[in-house]
Amino acid sequence: MDLLDIKDPKFLKDLSIKELEALSEDIRSFLIEKLSVTGGHIGPNLGVVELTIALHKCFDSPKDKFLWDVGHQSYVHKILTGRAGQFDTLRQYKGLCGFPKMVESEHDVWETGHSSTSLSAAMGMVIARDLKKEDSHIIPVIGDGALTGGMALEALNHIGHEQKNMIVILNDNEMSIAPNVGALHNVLGRLRTAGKYHWVKDELEMLLKKVPAVGGKLASTAERLKDSLKYLFVSGMFFEEMGFTYLGPIDGHNYEELFENLRYAKKTEGPVLLHVITKKGKGYDPAESDTVGTWHGTGPYKIETGDFVKPVNPPPAWSKLVSETVRKLARKDERIVAITPAMPVGSKLEGFASEFPDRMFDVGIAEQHAATVAAGLATQKMKPFLAIYSTFLQRAYDQVLHDICRQNLNVFIGIDRAGLVGADGETHQGVFDIAFMRHLPNMVLMMPKDENEGQHMVNTALSYEDGPIAMRFPRGNGIGVPMDETLKQIPIGSWEVLKEGKDAAILTFGTTIPMAMEAAVLLEKQGYSIKVVNARFIKPLDEKMMSELLGSNMPILTIEEAVLQGGFGSAVLEYAHEQGFHHAEIDRIGIPDEFIEHGSVNELLKEIGMTTDEVVKRLVMLAGKKQKRA
Amino acid sequence: MDLLDIKDPKFLKDLSIKELEALSEDIRSFLIEKLSVTGGHIGPNLGVVELTIALHKCFDSPKDKFLWDVGHQSYVHKILTGRAGQFDTLRQYKGLCGFPKMVESEHDVWETGHSSTSLSAAMGMVIARDLKKEDSHIIPVIGDGALTGGMALEALNHIGHEQKNMIVILNDNEMSIAPNVGALHNVLGRLRTAGKYHWVKDELEMLLKKVPAVGGKLASTAERLKDSLKYLFVSGMFFEEMGFTYLGPIDGHNYEELFENLRYAKKTEGPVLLHVITKKGKGYDPAESDTVGTWHGTGPYKIETGDFVKPVNPPPAWSKLVSETVRKLARKDERIVAITPAMPVGSKLEGFASEFPDRMFDVGIAEQHAATVAAGLATQKMKPFLAIYSTFLQRAYDQVLHDICRQNLNVFIGIDRAGLVGADGETHQGVFDIAFMRHLPNMVLMMPKDENEGQHMVNTALSYEDGPIAMRFPRGNGIGVPMDETLKQIPIGSWEVLKEGKDAAILTFGTTIPMAMEAAVLLEKQGYSIKVVNARFIKPLDEKMMSELLGSNMPILTIEEAVLQGGFGSAVLEYAHEQGFHHAEIDRIGIPDEFIEHGSVNELLKEIGMTTDEVVKRLVMLAGKKQKRA
Repeated sequence: MDLLDIKDPKFLKDLSIKELEALSEDIRSFLIEKLSVTGGHIGPNLGVVELTIALHKCFDSPKDKFLWDVGHQSYVHKILTGRAGQFDTLRQYKGLCGFPKMVESEHDVWETGHSSTSLSAAMGMVIARDLKKEDSHIIPVIGDGALTGGMALEALNHIGHEQKNMIVILNDNEMSIAPNVGALHNVLGRLRTAGKYHWVKDELEMLLKKVPAVGGKLASTAERLKDSLKYLFVSGMFFEEMGFTYLGPIDGHNYEELFENLRYAKKTEGPVLLHVITKKGKGYDPAESDTVGTWHGTGPYKIETGDFVKPVNPPPAWSKLVSETVRKLARKDERIVAITPAMPVGSKLEGFASEFPDRMFDVGIAEQHAATVAAGLATQKMKPFLAIYSTFLQRAYDQVLHDICRQNLNVFIGIDRAGLVGADGETHQGVFDIAFMRHLPNMVLMMPKDENEGQHMVNTALSYEDGPIAMRFPRGNGIGVPMDETLKQIPIGSWEVLKEGKDAAILTFGTTIPMAMEAAVLLEKQGYSIKVVNARFIKPLDEKMMSELLGSNMPILTIEEAVLQGGFGSAVLEYAHEQGFHHAEIDRIGIPDEFIEHGSVNELLKEIGMTTDEVVKRLVMLAGKKQKRA
Repeated sequence: MDLLDIKDPKFLKDLSIKELEALSEDIRSFLIEKLSVTGGHIGPNLGVVELTIALHKCFDSPKDKFLWDVGHQSYVHKILTGRAGQFDTLRQYKGLCGFPKMVESEHDVWETGHSSTSLSAAMGMVIARDLKKEDSHIIPVIGDGALTGGMALEALNHIGHEQKNMIVILNDNEMSIAPNVGALHNVLGRLRTAGKYHWVKDELEMLLKKVPAVGGKLASTAERLKDSLKYLFVSGMFFEEMGFTYLGPIDGHNYEELFENLRYAKKTEGPVLLHVITKKGKGYDPAESDTVGTWHGTGPYKIETGDFVKPVNPPPAWSKLVSETVRKLARKDERIVAITPAMPVGSKLEGFASEFPDRMFDVGIAEQHAATVAAGLATQKMKPFLAIYSTFLQRAYDQVLHDICRQNLNVFIGIDRAGLVGADGETHQGVFDIAFMRHLPNMVLMMPKDENEGQHMVNTALSYEDGPIAMRFPRGNGIGVPMDETLKQIPIGSWEVLKEGKDAAILTFGTTIPMAMEAAVLLEKQGYSIKVVNARFIKPLDEKMMSELLGSNMPILTIEEAVLQGGFGSAVLEYAHEQGFHHAEIDRIGIPDEFIEHGSVNELLKEIGMTTDEVVKRLVMLAGKKQKRA
């Protein structure tokens, strides 16, 4: 069928399984084609085609509510709710969002981006439903990875306790389940869908005859981190003991199994967990055979070959530059240990992991734990490198404050994807880190102007012994500068003058330095003399340079790709007034007090007025004032 | 023995069980006596006397490392490590800290205050030990409540996966375990301490004959929230399947059982969990018979009667005022629902809970989940009241940002214990909330000047329909003002002039208003005319009043009992410069960029220079400048 004709999921009610299978094929072809042009989360969406269709067939959205955990697997849901026509604009400026978005559709009832929130949100909706005496099904769909996040576990504990009706879909997209364990699942699954979902003595005894040694054996065969939790899930006992009715595991690509179990779940009292096994990338060979996560989210690709359409010889990716520099230093310093919360690929730690398998820890989607493991390591005089995206570091705010900064522990936090991130949009923009870290006592926070300074900063951070130190760096690639052979130290709190000038000074760092330089050069032609400073330490400020600037009465413009409230510019204001320079002309450019949606970074910068033109305009105003006063 | 003679725990090695029992009595008497004068966490410490002694006898601190989760149960450890002589200064300014503190002793290897961090920190220490090929035992001691915190569950998942040696002590201080469940424990406990700690078919079958229906039955008999997790723990399967060797449950007041199990744990490979049952308040009748938590932490009391030494007829406690106002409003507005992360007593929600049992949710120590449950409720047009302490709200920073503010959901956050909290010290000071909330788009943040304005603000918050709104209020009691009968609305973003003046203006809110008024009155006598503004909205600012002040060229002093970096004063600076008032004389008083330890609030304010004298001094400088300019 033509997917563009879909206005509403109601049409599914009349379709036979055969027709649904044809629809599944159409949706897969559509996704593979559209995403080959726009890029997007192809793997997760190909995996949930049947599951999403089955949910919409068995339930009545929006009365019944689906909550897509993380949300990058909501494309099929978007197609079924009348948004196929917008897929050419996916993840683009003013286009279709890559995550659920309430303004797009009444069928999007909960917005996501960060992991592990769906169970808690669903609990809120369930409480509301019951208090209002309404009749609807609340259905969070959560992946096996997201379930390792602490807040999801907190939620399970509460949901199991309350015993209110809720249907949790565990979308388990790992296929590598050992056969002996699988046998146990299937028996349990049959047991439960048959209606006898409480553990009873006889049935358990029957099971035990088939499975020689349950607990210890399972744990010892676990090979991957998620497995330790998964083995609890697949045995079902975890959920049963938590107060859930456990159904499954079932084949998430089999409509009959899906319908049978969803209908059973629908009539079951209390919380239900339906364990669905799906295959990421299902139906598209390159994605289906992916074992490391390359096809989780991608840019454009060639459909026939699965080759990615990538720029030729790009400058080094920031994540890789940082991780490889850490790796190089780890060869000389045995104290260096790397920690990632489930992002070994995104953080490009594969090289480090292969060279130092004993010194690399992927702790799962568990940012809080990751930060405090780093703190524990630092108490023992190790040098932990905590690799974490800016937006996900928000989850560890308290641990960075209470465990790392309060004890003044020597942890190096590599803040990846700092600043605007583009297509992933408002849930992923790394724009709050300065505002939430600048007020942490003992913290050193820096950002390099290019990849060469970046490698020296990593060296500086791992040589630093006086407490926590963090380096933020942007998504994407460096700017292509020559790289020094020998790593250097950058004095803590030292800024760098990039261009001298006397009419006004720009203080900025990282990605906004080119904009500043460009504006300064343009103004040079108009007769202004603009100083440009690489304010690479956001905390502490270069107090010597600040005092000189303030003492010279030079107007100051700060630029930061981060929120203005409480940001770097505010630090400059605070310093000026603290030091008694109440008459300093200080103007600030940065991200305003609102959430910034998806689009290319340049489009977004333009929308919020962070452009060379705006820098020129503000500088003319500032420098003009000075001339008037002079 | 005289506890003051203890310099080091080594003396325990030579004592018999009889002598240890005598020592236990001495320690209990000492604690009951000392804490009757100073106050402190009497209940938890009386509960861990034998456990702490047994740990120090069976292990070698500081080579072996004890990590006290939350840390308020570390008093016995402090006595055994030579600090009995400092108990007269407990929790007082420059005195013995109520939590572990590295500077006090080499036996304090990890500092705590917030819950659920010990397992993650222990994991870091274990990794360090193994990489350094050292030989020591790392022993986190965590309560059953703390184990519901998400980060503890994240840690269990990782620890079970890594299979490194660690001994986790689960200090379960709930005695109310149903007998049939207890039977299962004891069998399992014997099974495991006998050395056979893997589930095997025969033994399980034997168990099953004694227990009619395991899973469902246990879950359905659960009466309290923690129980849903506890029943997993006591069955041991949770830990076994997570990869732990489970030992217990054992009597935490029985030295023989403790020694046997600790020694067994010591020689066991891989992670061990020893489940110890203790009785809070053990050995002191009033505390031992406490069922609601009154004796968890207390002020001074009369030893004979257990009566608390309290001020006569104090003004209303802030927590109670807020919760009771919410309760009053809930009678008229069915949408109001209250949520607390394990603080129903601290947040004084007992009245609300008894009147509206269906609309009150204690979700356990689970701040992240609590915030997102509130968000989920708000999507369904309910009016959630999230009661949370300032310091614990740090845990939910990402959820407040990503779930509540980003979706602009109408949640009312009551931020309790905002500002300095006194005796609990640096882990509990509520001084970061302004800095970490002011940069959140859509957030309204306010603080009342007294309890009467406080009740009107609660009313304002629960009438507000446009997004998140938070009210911070201090620990302790109001100031005793008359209370209006009828609740009013306070216009969002409106400040209030408390005193007119023309030489300088003080902008402040909440607890620092009296200091401002006092300074203004003192200066009045010296011929200055000082304006005092109740800047009760921290966000948004009263822009009309700000513009008038700035337009009049009046110097401004801001005062806030919160960190200066990125705080309210910074908001004032930002506004002034944004509006082009680059010449505004603005000075700020607040908490400097360091962690503030324990002591009375007044002592701490004095230490950091937040006094009437300082306000006077700063105002004279500011007002003087203005006169010079004029």
